Amino acid sequence: MSTYTEQHNVPPQIPLGKYLFHRLNQLNVTTIFGLPSEFNSPLLDQIYQIPSMRWCGNANELNASYAADGYSRIKRLSCLVTTFGVGEMSVLNGIAGSFSEHVAVLHVVGMPPSSAQLKKLLLHHTLGNSDYDIFHRLASDICVHTAVLKESDNICDVIDNCIVRCYNQQQPVYCGIPVNLAGHLVDSKSLDSPLHLMRGFNQPISDAVEELVDILLEKIYSAQHPVIVADGCASRHDCIEELTEIAQKTGFPLCCTPMGKGSFDEQSKRYVGVYMGSISSPQVREVVDFADFVLVAGALTADYATSSYHFCYKPKNIVLLFDKYAKVSGTKTYPDVRLKDVLQLLARCLDPTKLQYIQEEIPESSCLRVKPDANTPLRQEWMWARLSHWFRPGDVIVTEMGTSGLGVNQIKFPSGTKVVSQPLWGSLGYSVGACLGVLIAVQEESRGNRLKDNRIILFVGDGALQLTVQEISTIIKWGLAPYIFVINNQGYTIDRLLSRDTHHATADYYNIQPWNNLSIIPAFGGTNYDVRKVVKVGQLDQLLKDQRFSNQDILKMVEIILPSMDAPQALLENYVSSDIEHSTQPKRPKLA
Amino acid sequence: MSTYTEQHNVPPQIPLGKYLFHRLNQLNVTTIFGLPSEFNSPLLDQIYQIPSMRWCGNANELNASYAADGYSRIKRLSCLVTTFGVGEMSVLNGIAGSFSEHVAVLHVVGMPPSSAQLKKLLLHHTLGNSDYDIFHRLASDICVHTAVLKESDNICDVIDNCIVRCYNQQQPVYCGIPVNLAGHLVDSKSLDSPLHLMRGFNQPISDAVEELVDILLEKIYSAQHPVIVADGCASRHDCIEELTEIAQKTGFPLCCTPMGKGSFDEQSKRYVGVYMGSISSPQVREVVDFADFVLVAGALTADYATSSYHFCYKPKNIVLLFDKYAKVSGTKTYPDVRLKDVLQLLARCLDPTKLQYIQEEIPESSCLRVKPDANTPLRQEWMWARLSHWFRPGDVIVTEMGTSGLGVNQIKFPSGTKVVSQPLWGSLGYSVGACLGVLIAVQEESRGNRLKDNRIILFVGDGALQLTVQEISTIIKWGLAPYIFVINNQGYTIDRLLSRDTHHATADYYNIQPWNNLSIIPAFGGTNYDVRKVVKVGQLDQLLKDQRFSNQDILKMVEIILPSMDAPQALLENYVSSDIEHSTQPKRPKLA
Repeated sequence: MSTYTEQHNVPPQIPLGKYLFHRLNQLNVTTIFGLPSEFNSPLLDQIYQIPSMRWCGNANELNASYAADGYSRIKRLSCLVTTFGVGEMSVLNGIAGSFSEHVAVLHVVGMPPSSAQLKKLLLHHTLGNSDYDIFHRLASDICVHTAVLKESDNICDVIDNCIVRCYNQQQPVYCGIPVNLAGHLVDSKSLDSPLHLMRGFNQPISDAVEELVDILLEKIYSAQHPVIVADGCASRHDCIEELTEIAQKTGFPLCCTPMGKGSFDEQSKRYVGVYMGSISSPQVREVVDFADFVLVAGALTADYATSSYHFCYKPKNIVLLFDKYAKVSGTKTYPDVRLKDVLQLLARCLDPTKLQYIQEEIPESSCLRVKPDANTPLRQEWMWARLSHWFRPGDVIVTEMGTSGLGVNQIKFPSGTKVVSQPLWGSLGYSVGACLGVLIAVQEESRGNRLKDNRIILFVGDGALQLTVQEISTIIKWGLAPYIFVINNQGYTIDRLLSRDTHHATADYYNIQPWNNLSIIPAFGGTNYDVRKVVKVGQLDQLLKDQRFSNQDILKMVEIILPSMDAPQALLENYVSSDIEHSTQPKRPKLA
Repeated sequence: MSTYTEQHNVPPQIPLGKYLFHRLNQLNVTTIFGLPSEFNSPLLDQIYQIPSMRWCGNANELNASYAADGYSRIKRLSCLVTTFGVGEMSVLNGIAGSFSEHVAVLHVVGMPPSSAQLKKLLLHHTLGNSDYDIFHRLASDICVHTAVLKESDNICDVIDNCIVRCYNQQQPVYCGIPVNLAGHLVDSKSLDSPLHLMRGFNQPISDAVEELVDILLEKIYSAQHPVIVADGCASRHDCIEELTEIAQKTGFPLCCTPMGKGSFDEQSKRYVGVYMGSISSPQVREVVDFADFVLVAGALTADYATSSYHFCYKPKNIVLLFDKYAKVSGTKTYPDVRLKDVLQLLARCLDPTKLQYIQEEIPESSCLRVKPDANTPLRQEWMWARLSHWFRPGDVIVTEMGTSGLGVNQIKFPSGTKVVSQPLWGSLGYSVGACLGVLIAVQEESRGNRLKDNRIILFVGDGALQLTVQEISTIIKWGLAPYIFVINNQGYTIDRLLSRDTHHATADYYNIQPWNNLSIIPAFGGTNYDVRKVVKVGQLDQLLKDQRFSNQDILKMVEIILPSMDAPQALLENYVSSDIEHSTQPKRPKLA
């Protein structure tokens, strides 16, 4: 079998930039996001030297970082290139989001030449105080690893280490490359040594993993009202298969958090719904809050007892499996157990005959209510119910964390449907940039037929859209064809609802300048597209029945006009701002 | 005379938020920029309680920070309100720019309730690690002062201190306010004590200032080929009057840096032009590079010997007057001398009869060349020359630091024309947000008739526009009427030029998605506007002759189509990327 360098005709010595991009190419990261500048252009040149790779080129840096985040959520790694100072400072919000939600983004920054840095010359894009290290320092708080290349480094090792840590930890890494080093020659031979990625099962099994699995088995076997909750790290750390096997072997009820949505086949008879504390559906609350054993797989956050998801189940019999450690019943911590190892061993050892658990039927959620009259103005409750029947296997749904994020969480998806959103970090406008990244990633995956005919469907509020609208221009530039549903409720409705019990709800500051949203695509140079405005129940129903509309061929934008205080029912009923501080107990503590 | 609280009917106890905004109102800061959220809405409510104040509401946070920066450049202080995490992380680039260029922006961040912070509850907009202090830490590297309010603080003092330090140092300050404290009652009495602002002349005069002025007088009296160079801090620290008096008394030739543009009356016979190192005009280089005494007033940057402005005059006889210290001849440093004090004492003591300097005539710059034929495609060289005759006293010109920034620097302005740009930090897209801030500031100033009939004229490249385009929507929302000249050279021309000596110049990554720029205003809901496209010399000439066009009444956008490698002549001739590392000496060392 020929080596990578033989297959790709790589000469023995190659510029550092080319080495970096070949390494990314090996991991199937073939589109690079960001903006060009004099400090990164010699790097960008190298992208064009590798036939399978492309430079995306974004409208602004923050959007580029959202795009890189979205791409990585599909492909498990992405790369973002910015410039020193102004460029890298503009992406900090995006990188912090990737850090918060465990998304692997390699952030490469083109820096001034090492000579200028050493002499502390005053350059533009500096703070005027000759402090070249400040931006690197800022990045180190929101990255799992940072490096700035020096000529004296073993450069291949430094680059490999950046990529490996980013991939294995599924969090951002910062890599600064002085512009004069971009062309620095390195031995390409290293490309033939595989990177030390933690992809499969670690052998040999550690004692800690074995001990933890024994404890888990004991708890699983004795549980009478158990539930498995999948959180964000389950999918981020590639454990869906193992989790599915455990779910099948146990027959336990299955829930996920908003970050874990997409971790289970929601058509499974054991799937209950999304657990969101007090705004969960009654079925979900009953199952989770009164379970005698909760297994949280892929736990993401440090503190679950009281969180933004309002988790209020008793901590006494919870096992939290984090990406690389675990917490048992709120007391014992296992510091060095990798999620995938634990789940894989657990799945292998689980003997269904030992279960005490007796399966009860999971009640169907009462989703699609009676269809309102065709002339009724549209509201979110029916809209999401109707959309749930329009979604199909393979769809990737990208949402803001406004009302649409909640809407998506209250409906069941067809098998194999993915969601991309930002439930924990929750940066307004994220979805537009992320949608671009998802589109490109899915386009690349479908070349290998793994994700053929996938529709990418964006839901974004009119308020959120204003933050990042120009990334639609990049979607147009690349001829991509998502559905963009603009949920027009005349401003920042999610904030109005969070302030609902106060006079803030109608405050002027939650209004926005009204746009002609359907004129945006042509203004950004789009020529092949389809735009619609939907106001009434019948219009949406007709549109979603239309087979031509339902096939993803060209860029489609649908503006949906909704009342300014409308939201999915769960949100309207339960979410008041006092919930921020403490979660409430469900009213009917009915043990199933 | 009645007190402030009497005049404004302020009750004895008022919410903290109201206190903050009354303090800003006292300093004539009456529009607040930013985006709303559940964590800052109780603060925003207080803005509406003060009749003279308004909440601007921006399209996104980065743009809001640019707007606050632009507003402060007119009014010497501004206030930006964002939300915890996602909001504040999005403005770091803007705040860093204000820090770098000495612009006073008070950044107020609405934070989660103190109780949640103390208990380290997990909230959205966190990194998931219960570290609430991280964003505050990040801000502290790019602010001159930071504070997070605690209930136990003497809150009025903390707020006063934030405002005073921001104003006096003319750099950003960070002030975090937990949402539960926004309504915390404080004594309004403090509002009647004036803030300790360093506005006028400090009395008594310190020994250090006297010593420095003596040295300056000696150097001024003996100089034979002197020059005064005004840099950014001259205008930022309110020293234009003093500087003008010194210039008049000495008759020395006057230059400014790009950051100092607008510091001198450019119609003065002693004004030479903008010093930009190797890309300065020959007249300017001769005067500056061969001076036997250079007085840099309002020096901004730590290292002038070799800088992005390519200063190459000999450091042996330079006096650099920074905002609060001075450097004489590259050796002696005066650590505690305030710019305004030095200049005021110098102006007062200067005796013109003691000057050895004999005035030579300043050569006219050869700006307006022969007008090309009306059918000639437009190029920047003639465009800027033509525009220089269209500008009129009172205009405020806002530019990107791309080719338009250079274009503006090569022409002489009418008396009383201001420039707002970001020559040192140089963040692409800055000008659109800054333009909004300038518009609002000038609108407010003109109510007092100080700046009546001022036209606000924005020059932005097509590439830069894409980064921040949505802030045009806020301009429309407030019915503001700038001129927006979109310099359409099909991509990032400044970067192409910086890469001109390499193959990068034609690189694909410097291209952008072509927009229908003239459709942007209606897409953002604009109804009362005027848009034009200009391709040829005659079209621009006709347009600028049109009296109706020249009167600022409604929002006007002019798209100017230019060749993709076109730029002002000085840039085409001189600026190559190797200049980043070392400045070159002028070829003809002719001592005047």
